[in-house]
Amino acid sequence: MPHISTSRTDTASTSVTAALETILAENTAVVARLSADTEVTARLDDVAARLRGAERIFVLGAGRSGLALRMTAMRLMHLGLTVHVVGETTTPAITAADALLVASGSGSTAGIVRAAETAHEVGATVLALTTAASSALAGLAQVSVIVPAAEKQDHDGALSAQYSGGLFEQSVLLIGDALFHALWQASGATAAELWPRHANLE
Amino acid sequence: MPHISTSRTDTASTSVTAALETILAENTAVVARLSADTEVTARLDDVAARLRGAERIFVLGAGRSGLALRMTAMRLMHLGLTVHVVGETTTPAITAADALLVASGSGSTAGIVRAAETAHEVGATVLALTTAASSALAGLAQVSVIVPAAEKQDHDGALSAQYSGGLFEQSVLLIGDALFHALWQASGATAAELWPRHANLE
Amino acid sequence: MPHISTSRTDTASTSVTAALETILAENTAVVARLSADTEVTARLDDVAARLRGAERIFVLGAGRSGLALRMTAMRLMHLGLTVHVVGETTTPAITAADALLVASGSGSTAGIVRAAETAHEVGATVLALTTAASSALAGLAQVSVIVPAAEKQDHDGALSAQYSGGLFEQSVLLIGDALFHALWQASGATAAELWPRHANLE
Amino acid sequence: MPHISTSRTDTASTSVTAALETILAENTAVVARLSADTEVTARLDDVAARLRGAERIFVLGAGRSGLALRMTAMRLMHLGLTVHVVGETTTPAITAADALLVASGSGSTAGIVRAAETAHEVGATVLALTTAASSALAGLAQVSVIVPAAEKQDHDGALSAQYSGGLFEQSVLLIGDALFHALWQASGATAAELWPRHANLE
Repeated sequence: MPHISTSRTDTASTSVTAALETILAENTAVVARLSADTEVTARLDDVAARLRGAERIFVLGAGRSGLALRMTAMRLMHLGLTVHVVGETTTPAITAADALLVASGSGSTAGIVRAAETAHEVGATVLALTTAASSALAGLAQVSVIVPAAEKQDHDGALSAQYSGGLFEQSVLLIGDALFHALWQASGATAAELWPRHANLE
Repeated sequence: MPHISTSRTDTASTSVTAALETILAENTAVVARLSADTEVTARLDDVAARLRGAERIFVLGAGRSGLALRMTAMRLMHLGLTVHVVGETTTPAITAADALLVASGSGSTAGIVRAAETAHEVGATVLALTTAASSALAGLAQVSVIVPAAEKQDHDGALSAQYSGGLFEQSVLLIGDALFHALWQASGATAAELWPRHANLE
Repeated sequence: MPHISTSRTDTASTSVTAALETILAENTAVVARLSADTEVTARLDDVAARLRGAERIFVLGAGRSGLALRMTAMRLMHLGLTVHVVGETTTPAITAADALLVASGSGSTAGIVRAAETAHEVGATVLALTTAASSALAGLAQVSVIVPAAEKQDHDGALSAQYSGGLFEQSVLLIGDALFHALWQASGATAAELWPRHANLE
Repeated sequence: MPHISTSRTDTASTSVTAALETILAENTAVVARLSADTEVTARLDDVAARLRGAERIFVLGAGRSGLALRMTAMRLMHLGLTVHVVGETTTPAITAADALLVASGSGSTAGIVRAAETAHEVGATVLALTTAASSALAGLAQVSVIVPAAEKQDHDGALSAQYSGGLFEQSVLLIGDALFHALWQASGATAAELWPRHANLE
């Protein structure tokens, strides 16, 4: 594995635990900024309400953002909602009664923006997580939540010491799980009531 | 969507932002406990070293744990490592020179344990993330990292207010990204050097 | 690429077109044997009727068999049926009103048999495609269709010149598409009526 | 399941076996036309040679075409080739030494053409299966094989009684498996030599 050199003298100082603390500190800062912003707080509750009100929920993201949203999609299914992951085998066409939850750090990934445009054109509700308030994706969305995390190609490390969109993608998971948690609490369902919906054939 | 009732009187008090703070606080507690434990600290560095030393890395997890590990797998590929996700189309057979990074909250999911047994039988290095120190998976692994998070069916909420294995699965992502971050720092590579490895055909 | 030598003197004689004719001839033989067997004919119509009657359809197969069934799953969704692929993100738990369409050449792949047992235990209808009439899978199934094709480890080439379960997997696609075609014809729907159900966000 | 009416009087005449014979007859006609065309025969052997010569093979297709190519990708991996499916988790960036095997009935699906353009721009070899000789995809490809099958929106049934691109997608599987079979025969490897490469962790 020739790509990873260990010749740098500071190698010993970068323990995994230290990296974990760095990552946690960055997420703590993001959550603090989101929580302190009443506009964001209102938008997140709006996203939750629109997910609850949609006939079906579609989730979409490229790469790691898409994987984070798939984690959320699985939970929303456990809650009894009808949820589809864009790109999976039996995902149907989106229609006006549906909501599209989409995550893109830059808000400008070509395929993602095109899909959001299609969803918008058919009258579906577009709900966006992005770092870029003035992006094409944010412009299309009924509700956009702007995450104060580094965008994928912010290589200078000003906003995060992590590589590429790592912090944004972690935020997508935490926000997605917070959306689920709030919807679950609001539902009044017990954990035991959700459990039978877990896939039983794997 | 009949499954989610809004009739409970405390609905208004569960904002998404409050849920986000709950989730962050739980992750903060997990990271604090991991960091304070010198045994865990040593094991995490051992996992990083064995991932770096493996000819190929395989990642395996069911459901949301598997999705979290796939996020890590993508990053390890960006770092120049050869990484396969168990279950994807062109994933080959694991052999003695390879490492299997596996996550399972209970450490006893049948299909996961069976795969870990196979990996162990062929001589591959098994590296486990689990909440259960005395589980079959922990018993099989060369290195196991015990995450102080609720297991999937701890429905009483003693360890986490979140549903099922939510906290464990978030920990898998944060630990996976910390493993990447530590390996990246040790490599001495710049972000610009990793960037050309990102998939360019999507 | 060291694994593929071109030193054999008969290399020139194996054109892709010749291989294509070999594959077609093998599939022609399989279809002829299936068509000539009135028991098989009745069973295939039974499978179609049970798919049409199920509340939801689940499809399951390992490796290439699973990919072939996913092709069929997509078509059944286009027809307006509710279809889930076992292992995809938002696939729910199977219940008594559902049908499981499962393909396994040997009928004895451990994970596949275990899933079929679970489906059977909850009261779902199990519909099997296999080469092995006396396999565990065929024993579990309400209806099993025995495909006269080589099983994966018939390495001697007696039933097929193709590698491993190639012929069986091709048969799974052709039979799956025939199940769709018959259901479509019976539905009276036009192609234009199916078209709007195709995924529109990719 | 309200979408499928059984009220048409000709329902009884569409048995699954009859559908299977229709499908086989259509594939027989396609193979006959491919085999009779010496230009096609030469191109298919050229595709095989370029796959064998590539450093890594990438496969790409939307929907059912993509699933068919994934079946082929798995086999090419069994043969010892390095193969990646575009869109899977750890698929890296394509480079000049690689080949992209792409299937698209229309040859004009936006995302597919864009990916083929990128592959072409970085100097990779583009190998296309399509029904449309004058399509953007065929124009980009070093070698294109024109399959005489209906295109997805040929709803009038002139070329195939099957729905949408069904015949093309079946052809993609048969041609893909023929490419594998020819490469396997040319390699001189026995079935027993390929077997150990099958995934062992599922």
